[in-house]
Amino acid sequence: MVVEIISVGTEILLGNIVNTNAAYLAEKCAGLGLSCYYQDVVGDNGERLMQVIRTALSRADVLLLSGGLGPTQDDLTKETAAAAIGRGLYLHEQSKQAIAEFFRQRGMEITDNNWKQAMVPEGCIVLENPNGTAPGIIMEDNGRHLILMPGPPNELVPMFENAVIPYLNTLQPGIIYSQTVKICGIGESKVEHMIEDLINTQSNPTIATYAKTGEVHLRVTARADEEKEAKKLVKPFVKELKTRFGNHIYTTQEEVTLEKAVVDLLLANHLTVSTVESCTGGMLAARLINVSGVSEVFKTGYITYSNKSKRKLLGIKKASLEKHGAVSAEIAKQMAKGASVFTKADVTVGITGIAGPEGGSEEKPVGLVYIACSVCGRVNVKECHFSGSRMKIRESSVSSALSLMRESILAYYSEVTFGAKKS
Amino acid sequence: MVVEIISVGTEILLGNIVNTNAAYLAEKCAGLGLSCYYQDVVGDNGERLMQVIRTALSRADVLLLSGGLGPTQDDLTKETAAAAIGRGLYLHEQSKQAIAEFFRQRGMEITDNNWKQAMVPEGCIVLENPNGTAPGIIMEDNGRHLILMPGPPNELVPMFENAVIPYLNTLQPGIIYSQTVKICGIGESKVEHMIEDLINTQSNPTIATYAKTGEVHLRVTARADEEKEAKKLVKPFVKELKTRFGNHIYTTQEEVTLEKAVVDLLLANHLTVSTVESCTGGMLAARLINVSGVSEVFKTGYITYSNKSKRKLLGIKKASLEKHGAVSAEIAKQMAKGASVFTKADVTVGITGIAGPEGGSEEKPVGLVYIACSVCGRVNVKECHFSGSRMKIRESSVSSALSLMRESILAYYSEVTFGAKKS
Repeated sequence: MVVEIISVGTEILLGNIVNTNAAYLAEKCAGLGLSCYYQDVVGDNGERLMQVIRTALSRADVLLLSGGLGPTQDDLTKETAAAAIGRGLYLHEQSKQAIAEFFRQRGMEITDNNWKQAMVPEGCIVLENPNGTAPGIIMEDNGRHLILMPGPPNELVPMFENAVIPYLNTLQPGIIYSQTVKICGIGESKVEHMIEDLINTQSNPTIATYAKTGEVHLRVTARADEEKEAKKLVKPFVKELKTRFGNHIYTTQEEVTLEKAVVDLLLANHLTVSTVESCTGGMLAARLINVSGVSEVFKTGYITYSNKSKRKLLGIKKASLEKHGAVSAEIAKQMAKGASVFTKADVTVGITGIAGPEGGSEEKPVGLVYIACSVCGRVNVKECHFSGSRMKIRESSVSSALSLMRESILAYYSEVTFGAKKS
Repeated sequence: MVVEIISVGTEILLGNIVNTNAAYLAEKCAGLGLSCYYQDVVGDNGERLMQVIRTALSRADVLLLSGGLGPTQDDLTKETAAAAIGRGLYLHEQSKQAIAEFFRQRGMEITDNNWKQAMVPEGCIVLENPNGTAPGIIMEDNGRHLILMPGPPNELVPMFENAVIPYLNTLQPGIIYSQTVKICGIGESKVEHMIEDLINTQSNPTIATYAKTGEVHLRVTARADEEKEAKKLVKPFVKELKTRFGNHIYTTQEEVTLEKAVVDLLLANHLTVSTVESCTGGMLAARLINVSGVSEVFKTGYITYSNKSKRKLLGIKKASLEKHGAVSAEIAKQMAKGASVFTKADVTVGITGIAGPEGGSEEKPVGLVYIACSVCGRVNVKECHFSGSRMKIRESSVSSALSLMRESILAYYSEVTFGAKKS
């Protein structure tokens, strides 16, 4: 089945916002086994929107439209999509009540134009929107499916997950089941090489590779008549991936991030953590602290960008800094050890590196980063060479630090190290 | 003149990457006074790409294509675009040499398929690509302009800035000149209200509003026969905006970020800075440290997520935490003051808040954040109420902290406060 993704909004055409909805929907559709050949962006203009919808109807089975469902006169998606297949609109009592309730709960006054959002096309399926006032709409016409969703990602994503995916699954023979395997600590090309045989011989399930900063996500997708059967197809593949990648797999759950996996590992082992950052300047702590519930494990973060603060806060000796240089395996180690002494955390991490664009030398080029992780006194140090912009080098450093934390904690408990050099 | 942005790449259709090129090109085109009514994404498929190009040729004057210029058989943009207007390809000797030189400099071996990248359409303009091996291409046909650029942003952006913008300027009567005015510390709707009269009566120059987290950017764009004249049209508008927004304007330079403006202000006044963060967990320090050269001003960052670390690192009294609660104006103030005492920095910032999704109460809801900034002992505290996800609340907090730092430093030197409540 072929899907076309149509994003409606003048703000996208003007470059005011990046079209993350299209990327989200595209990734989800690929996971659902739907083919997508075109994405379109069009402004809040009835005539041009109509042209895009008509073209899409001529070449796709499913149209996923987002945006243009707001209360203003500019918002034309519903009216235009309905007109494209000859439908009128009527006041949907349930949506009217939901809108009234949405405003009541927030103590906000309803303006007259809000009722426009309760008008829906004849014979459509209305999708609830608990996070906003624009309901979603599904229309069916001559084997074509027009699905209209609100533009704000915090409204679109839950609606797509909760209502649209189940609907799309009813359109396809059998069902699609996919599982994500998230890998850290191995580069993309190595991961691809390690599964080349699986990819070359794939049919059902399929494996798709998604490279992220410092991570690779694999998605195993199977199609079958029933969910049970599809799961049975996926299972041996995931098992094979587990055999091949071992502890480098940090989760097989879609919603678990690398920082969440690290925090969960800390929680499970009753470990506390402190961080000491130089070039990353707080980004590692910030990622850990983005995990709700981190307060039980996170003790203290230090940002010791200057040599002076490294000495003062962590007791690192001036002679040591002069001998090894601030960017060195030894100083990374001392940063992690200093944090253990001063904060008494079980796990401590030190990051020191040259993020550029200035500050590099032949011996220590931009992108050289040392990361040390101490687990109950046992320290692992990793030397990394990253490339890209200052921000990219810092993001790569943080991902590597999270990987090293995982490796170090697992190694501490299993007495098996992998990848990281023992100090 | 009407432009259409066509992004070529199966990786976009699969959602592997977010289409940031389209957003970049769209914003630039808006700034150049070009109208954009459609953006398209299509995969590396000759037939479908041809359909998109033909449709775009029927409704736009300029086609901006990116991607699909690589060396593999999958890369079809050049061949398809040339075929669309009946052009053949030939080997461009200069591009061949540039490619050879690119590989030589990097000590890499050339494979035969790389020469495909030196093939260009008959009668085209070839654009150099110092950052990659795919040259850019401009073709003119019957008043239509097809502009082909490589997909990687680090190749596309410099090529667009250095070669495509000057070309586009030759197509339009006169020239386009625009200046950006960046505002912090005032919300989007207030900014829009304050310039409503200017927007309602605008013709040449025009004013466009871009809302960012905690910031609003205004772009004033004028068209004239000569640059001097266009600048003369823009100048009084920028002056008027300066009168209306005063110190809330932190820069009129496109490339200056809010954190850069703050670091520049610190440097200019020979001030050092330290940060103490709770809910933002290092994000403020991380943004400051993304400014190259920050080492001259940044002393120390503390991440005191727990009450214990607030007490231990900053000497905040247990009784004080119990009396006011960790999320309070008083504790934010004590965090900033504690940092002054312990790090001796001239400017110190304390942030404490409830980022959610858990931890809120009726009295102190999710989104409540207190930010304190001390400049040489004089402390300003700001109470903020943010909404959105945990990450969004934290990002808003960091932007507000940067604004407060600017306000506090300026106020200290001018004895004029604006917006922030003096403590």
